[in-house]
This record gives sequence, structure tokens and C-alpha cells, in this order.
Amino acid sequence: MNTVTILGFAAAVLTTASFLPQAIKTIQTKNTSGISLFMYSLFALGTLLWLLFGMFTSNIPIVAANAITLVFAIIILIYKIKYK
Amino acid sequence: MNTVTILGFAAAVLTTASFLPQAIKTIQTKNTSGISLFMYSLFALGTLLWLLFGMFTSNIPIVAANAITLVFAIIILIYKIKYK
Repeated sequence: MNTVTILGFAAAVLTTASFLPQAIKTIQTKNTSGISLFMYSLFALGTLLWLLFGMFTSNIPIVAANAITLVFAIIILIYKIKYK
Repeated sequence: MNTVTILGFAAAVLTTASFLPQAIKTIQTKNTSGISLFMYSLFALGTLLWLLFGMFTSNIPIVAANAITLVFAIIILIYKIKYK
């Protein structure tokens, strides 16, 4: 694996994993007042389209990263709708 | 442009654009209590690595999408640090 591939892999891990602390914080505090409903609506839809794109192009890293991110995004979105 | 390419393009536009309403909301309300500092730290770093990955692989869509997202992420991160 060359340096550029490692760079892309690290980028994917970081942007995917970043939503975990937000999901944990949101679940624990139920404080969603500063979170944008519009952001998470667009983001969850976009992540779903990335997931479908990954499936259609048989790109496992895109499928894996976006499946995980979609779960976090939906959790945050549900809390935002429930505790707005 | 085939259907799968349009799907990928729509996914990129949505996930990139989704951070705009969050940035606007954060700037207007200065309410960052529900936002995870850890999330935006990891996310901004990940987006920076995606940007570098796009530059090294001469992938203009990755560079464009992540340059825009990085600006929004840094704005939200600065507000989170300033108004925590």
C-alpha cells in the first residue's frame, strides 16, 4: 500500500469515525438545540446516495464507510426530531 | 453522463452542501452546546486529508468537494472553540 493510498484510507476512517463522538454526545445529553435539522436531513440523504453509488459500482470501501456514517447520521437525525 | 455518475454527483453535492445550513445556524445563533468538538476536530482533519488525497491523485471532484466542506467545518470548529 503506497503513501497516497494510506492517506485516502486515513481520510476515510477519520471522516467516518468523526460522527461517532457526535452521536454519543447527542444520545447522552439529548441536547440538539445547536444542531441543524436541515444539515442532517441533507447529509443522511447524501450518505444514502453514496451507499447506493458504492453498491452500483461495487466499491466496498465506499459502501462500508457510508453504511457506518449513515447509521450515525440517522441516530443524530432521530434525536434532533425527537428532542428539538 | 450515466445514471450511476449522476447518483455519485448528487451524493457529493448533498454531503458537501449539508454543512452550509449548519455553518449558517452556528454563526447566527452561536449555540454550539450540542455540537461535538471531538467530531469537528476529527472531521476537519479527515477533510484536510481527503483534500491532500485529491491533490495527489489529481481528482478535481474530490479536491473541490473537500475544499468547500473544509471551509464549513473550520467555521463550525472555530465557533465551537470560541463559544463552547
